[in-house]
Amino acid sequence: MTAILLNNIKEVRENIKNWKKEGLKIGLIPTMGALHAGHASLIKKAKEMCDKVVVSVFVNPIQFGPNEDFDKYPRTLDTDRNLCDEIGADIVFAPSPKEMYGENTRLSNNELTFVCPPYNLVDCLCGKSRLGHFDGVATVVMKLFNITTPDYAFFGQKDAQQLFILKKMVKDLNLDLEIVHCPIVREEDGLALSSRNTYLTQQERTNALTISKALKEVSKYYEKGITNTQVLFDAAISVLDKNIELEYIEFRDFETFEKVSEVKNNTLIAIAAKSGKTRLIDNIII
Amino acid sequence: MTAILLNNIKEVRENIKNWKKEGLKIGLIPTMGALHAGHASLIKKAKEMCDKVVVSVFVNPIQFGPNEDFDKYPRTLDTDRNLCDEIGADIVFAPSPKEMYGENTRLSNNELTFVCPPYNLVDCLCGKSRLGHFDGVATVVMKLFNITTPDYAFFGQKDAQQLFILKKMVKDLNLDLEIVHCPIVREEDGLALSSRNTYLTQQERTNALTISKALKEVSKYYEKGITNTQVLFDAAISVLDKNIELEYIEFRDFETFEKVSEVKNNTLIAIAAKSGKTRLIDNIII
Repeated sequence: MTAILLNNIKEVRENIKNWKKEGLKIGLIPTMGALHAGHASLIKKAKEMCDKVVVSVFVNPIQFGPNEDFDKYPRTLDTDRNLCDEIGADIVFAPSPKEMYGENTRLSNNELTFVCPPYNLVDCLCGKSRLGHFDGVATVVMKLFNITTPDYAFFGQKDAQQLFILKKMVKDLNLDLEIVHCPIVREEDGLALSSRNTYLTQQERTNALTISKALKEVSKYYEKGITNTQVLFDAAISVLDKNIELEYIEFRDFETFEKVSEVKNNTLIAIAAKSGKTRLIDNIII
Repeated sequence: MTAILLNNIKEVRENIKNWKKEGLKIGLIPTMGALHAGHASLIKKAKEMCDKVVVSVFVNPIQFGPNEDFDKYPRTLDTDRNLCDEIGADIVFAPSPKEMYGENTRLSNNELTFVCPPYNLVDCLCGKSRLGHFDGVATVVMKLFNITTPDYAFFGQKDAQQLFILKKMVKDLNLDLEIVHCPIVREEDGLALSSRNTYLTQQERTNALTISKALKEVSKYYEKGITNTQVLFDAAISVLDKNIELEYIEFRDFETFEKVSEVKNNTLIAIAAKSGKTRLIDNIII
């Protein structure tokens, strides 16, 4: 089956309106392209749950900081389309920045209406180093929701803070859809899949493996009955390669997003770290 | 005909989904209640353009500042319902603050996802004295849009800045609906209708009449060919009663919302002023 490739909003709306008239359930997988097996798992899940599946492929300028990798972020639309075809997505929506934002595509909050998640959820973890990132994410996801009106939208746990923030947005703004929380997909050796893994040299990749190992170590300790986050933090650090530049390891209740001092059920343990120049994130939820 | 009074979001959604399945067009008039002939004109317009008309009645806590009139804002649901019945609205949606925001109903941006209009549009005119007001307005209107999924939403020109901001929100966030710009309704003597007019004493009301007179004066000057805003500003001032406490008179392009020094087609001339303790706004668009 071949997915329809659409670049413009109006055509997407028309297709989806016709499907909705027939009572079909729509699934959306918002992506920035450079699709990998993690994305594939989301598309497959959508195929199971929905009648029609829309994959958006859009490297969203407003969620990148001025010194981030917007320009060099991998763009691989042809292979992305093939993957979507294989799994059986119905639409690949790949708009230009201009289609999404008009002429001026690096918009500030002086020009654009933003969706702003609660400051408490934004001013921590990845939001600390990526100022404005989650406002940009929430805004583009809201736009994509309004364009595609999905019944279900699929997000991976890999971006756990994003997942939490978008669930909160759906609740706070009464969006009539459900966010489906999908598990992290890993390489056999444990590395969490990420479009940014392609930036890694062989050595950096080897070093980066210690990030998922650190999370595994925390998990092992927890299974032995150790719940104190300071002890678990130290256990994680002891595993990280010395060339890995740690940004944070944090322990948060995945119901409230508050920091916890003792790990219990539904605790998020999240890491961000650089291997070489590449910033990577990973997490587990106990 | 009797409008259905609904207090909960789920029931509103169910009714509207059934209507949408039949292909009916939905109109929404978001109000804070205390309905007057201005609101009535919006409901009538909606009746003309739509198959089903929803009037929301909700005094939105998050758009009031701590020292504003949230508690004393008039609440007249019974008469509001009667008016909606008379004109033939189909649903009066009157949720509690708890239904809209949960237990904590005076939420800050630490707890709630907000919709934030462009700062340039917010940090001027009424936004200068009403900090956070338009974030609260945009957020509640987004919620109401998501709950009622209207094809058309009706707003009066009386709140011209609000109208401009909401149109911008619809465009920026790709909402699939049209905002219908409706004219200001005035008393015979020129006073723009407002739910807050009930706060006025007889004397304050008399003084307040000079606000619409000032706008008329500007209009007269413009018709004589005078376009310089400083001259027009002085003409307006000369008409205002000395007991009226002026907050602003501004001249803005209603396409860009930029200040203009020469009035031309589609220029907004907006006034905010207090008569007694009551803050009133009025405007004309040339």
